[in-house]
Amino acid sequence: MAGPDEQALRRETPGTRNVIHFNNAGASLPIQEVLDVQREYLEAEALYGGYEVVTQFSEQLQRPYDTLASLLNCAPANIAILQSATSAWAQVFYGIPLTAGDRILTSIIEYGANYIAFLQMAKRVGVAIEVIPEDDEGDISLPALEVLITQGDKKPALIAITHVPTNSGRVYDAAGVGRLAQAHGVPYLLDACQSVGQLPLDVQAIGCDWLSGTSRKYLRGPRGVGFLYASDSAMEKFEPAMLDLYGATWTATDQYEMQPGARRYEIYEKNFAGMVGLGVAVDYANQLGMDWIWARIQAIARELRGKLARIPGVTVHDRGRLLCGIVSFTKEGVDPGVIMARLCEQGINVKTSAISSTRLDFERVHLPPFVVRASVHYFNTADEIEQLVLALTAVGDCSSKAREVM
Amino acid sequence: MAGPDEQALRRETPGTRNVIHFNNAGASLPIQEVLDVQREYLEAEALYGGYEVVTQFSEQLQRPYDTLASLLNCAPANIAILQSATSAWAQVFYGIPLTAGDRILTSIIEYGANYIAFLQMAKRVGVAIEVIPEDDEGDISLPALEVLITQGDKKPALIAITHVPTNSGRVYDAAGVGRLAQAHGVPYLLDACQSVGQLPLDVQAIGCDWLSGTSRKYLRGPRGVGFLYASDSAMEKFEPAMLDLYGATWTATDQYEMQPGARRYEIYEKNFAGMVGLGVAVDYANQLGMDWIWARIQAIARELRGKLARIPGVTVHDRGRLLCGIVSFTKEGVDPGVIMARLCEQGINVKTSAISSTRLDFERVHLPPFVVRASVHYFNTADEIEQLVLALTAVGDCSSKAREVM
Repeated sequence: MAGPDEQALRRETPGTRNVIHFNNAGASLPIQEVLDVQREYLEAEALYGGYEVVTQFSEQLQRPYDTLASLLNCAPANIAILQSATSAWAQVFYGIPLTAGDRILTSIIEYGANYIAFLQMAKRVGVAIEVIPEDDEGDISLPALEVLITQGDKKPALIAITHVPTNSGRVYDAAGVGRLAQAHGVPYLLDACQSVGQLPLDVQAIGCDWLSGTSRKYLRGPRGVGFLYASDSAMEKFEPAMLDLYGATWTATDQYEMQPGARRYEIYEKNFAGMVGLGVAVDYANQLGMDWIWARIQAIARELRGKLARIPGVTVHDRGRLLCGIVSFTKEGVDPGVIMARLCEQGINVKTSAISSTRLDFERVHLPPFVVRASVHYFNTADEIEQLVLALTAVGDCSSKAREVM
Repeated sequence: MAGPDEQALRRETPGTRNVIHFNNAGASLPIQEVLDVQREYLEAEALYGGYEVVTQFSEQLQRPYDTLASLLNCAPANIAILQSATSAWAQVFYGIPLTAGDRILTSIIEYGANYIAFLQMAKRVGVAIEVIPEDDEGDISLPALEVLITQGDKKPALIAITHVPTNSGRVYDAAGVGRLAQAHGVPYLLDACQSVGQLPLDVQAIGCDWLSGTSRKYLRGPRGVGFLYASDSAMEKFEPAMLDLYGATWTATDQYEMQPGARRYEIYEKNFAGMVGLGVAVDYANQLGMDWIWARIQAIARELRGKLARIPGVTVHDRGRLLCGIVSFTKEGVDPGVIMARLCEQGINVKTSAISSTRLDFERVHLPPFVVRASVHYFNTADEIEQLVLALTAVGDCSSKAREVM
């Protein structure tokens, strides 16, 4: 595959010298520059004052807005920076005025944090949660969605779906959902926490009103930073759940005015060093190009799935029309937590994914309470896959243990 | 005054070599160790993986809970770590089920972000905002508060006040308010953003249900971190405004269970490096002792106010029974923004405070739209005060400028 020099990419990522990192859907490894700019920012704060350096670093602090706008195909004014994807998502969701009987349409792969928020609002005001089924190929069913939109007692108040689940490799047709949402005038909130930085996202093509994402996963940015895209029309209709002195100005005793753009969703005080790091990370992704990144991730994940499937006792659980870099599997007779621990001892980072994170999906296909998740990124190599496969083959293999003892 | 060695304190604070920092109510200067542990944490994340190092640093990540519990006289289980004091405050406020006609009692010195939240809920559900007057000495009037509690149409849904305003030096009698809140069974949320780390706070003695605070101001911790104290009884009655997969577990399709302690208020993904830094900063404050810190800050502020008052044209605006380290003033004929800029050129950090941050207080005493705020900490010296006074004397002094030209 043509593209950037693989060895150079790895040299720029110091963590690749210490670990074999297949936990990119948890938190990926940043490049050296992302680390450096954060450390420099923190030092400047300590040496000159936390408020005082904001002006000095104004360009670096603007950079995440500009680079995310390029990444997502929107204006910088449609970007807000928050503490996490969850904070970004919640600032939208809890801000939608919901009353008893209001219908929320969501997905089978919905992330647990979102679903808990639905349940909280069901308890608080009595909203109804309705789940959009999948088609035979494991994609979200657009015909079923259209039926749900048009045939209920009242038009849904919100479509809130997850683009890529935390526990498995499939990618939903977010743009297909967007076409239906727009056609029927239903607000559409897309959780892109696992998809942003992994595959090309164009908010205009998707047709969502809001998109939430995080820095630390496929974008390879710092922890403690997330972001939100909000469309102009969404901002005309809805307020953020929480406003502070940055999101709004206290203009008269009984009046406030919101910021004109998406920064109304922000709480001003935040991880500024992390913001600077995020700007660098997104810039790096933009320079590599999302098309190249996406093709490469798909190729590596395909290779990994193929090799895992050939290990005796291993079952790969990903299914879907379009598969991404999140690879999930179990090995017969071996606890996923034990697999994670054994691999970790050998410097291989994977993660387990629990039923409580994506309960609807686990229950529907009768998965065990935990699966192993190996999430690949473009900097992973064929050799790293080989080492994972070797290590996984040995885990729980009693015959080889017995031989060692003999 | 007996106590720690002043020179040693300054040696441990690298920023004191570069700037004269009177912006401690904005963001203070951290000690070297607070900077170091953040930088080390970020490096470990980059070298081994952001999720993987959490276990390795579990002690350091527990430290802010333990040290804040010591500082505030509660159990670590009553502490939550959030992105900011505002996030902490909002997680409580927006979580209280409010309906039309519900009464919120607040203070004249209320911080604008809080007041905007009140106004948002006034617009959203029709709550009534009532302001507790001050007595002649500039403290919150407890007799007036008792009248408000007992003589309205219905018992107030909430008392939410600010302990120390962002724009001026007075300290409200938070414990007096707590006695009335408890006597009448009214939930009590205290914004201690400017008081924590500056004066001794004991949540049991104050009698509040919740207390919100920040890391970066008088506690001298990192930016992008705040915290919440929540009492056991408050947690029995109220849910956080927003829940995620850390605050709650998705236990069955239509069920969630909240964390037993205050961590239910957290959004899991956060500034972990900042948390580690906060633990070190609070530990440092605990070791110095809040009694010594408070006495020293009061003494320095007293000295500064006395010297400022003797500069021709300067008016000090702080009034109150008890004054703290926040000193506010104006100079006749000179724009506060110009004062800040001129002092900055000489390496002296002060800040302006705007009417939009504490509108009720500005309007009531007819302050100009901006005042200058010089907020002192225990590491400030008599020599630094002297330099501020000298610089301030020269700002806008046309006669001295005229002499220079001649």
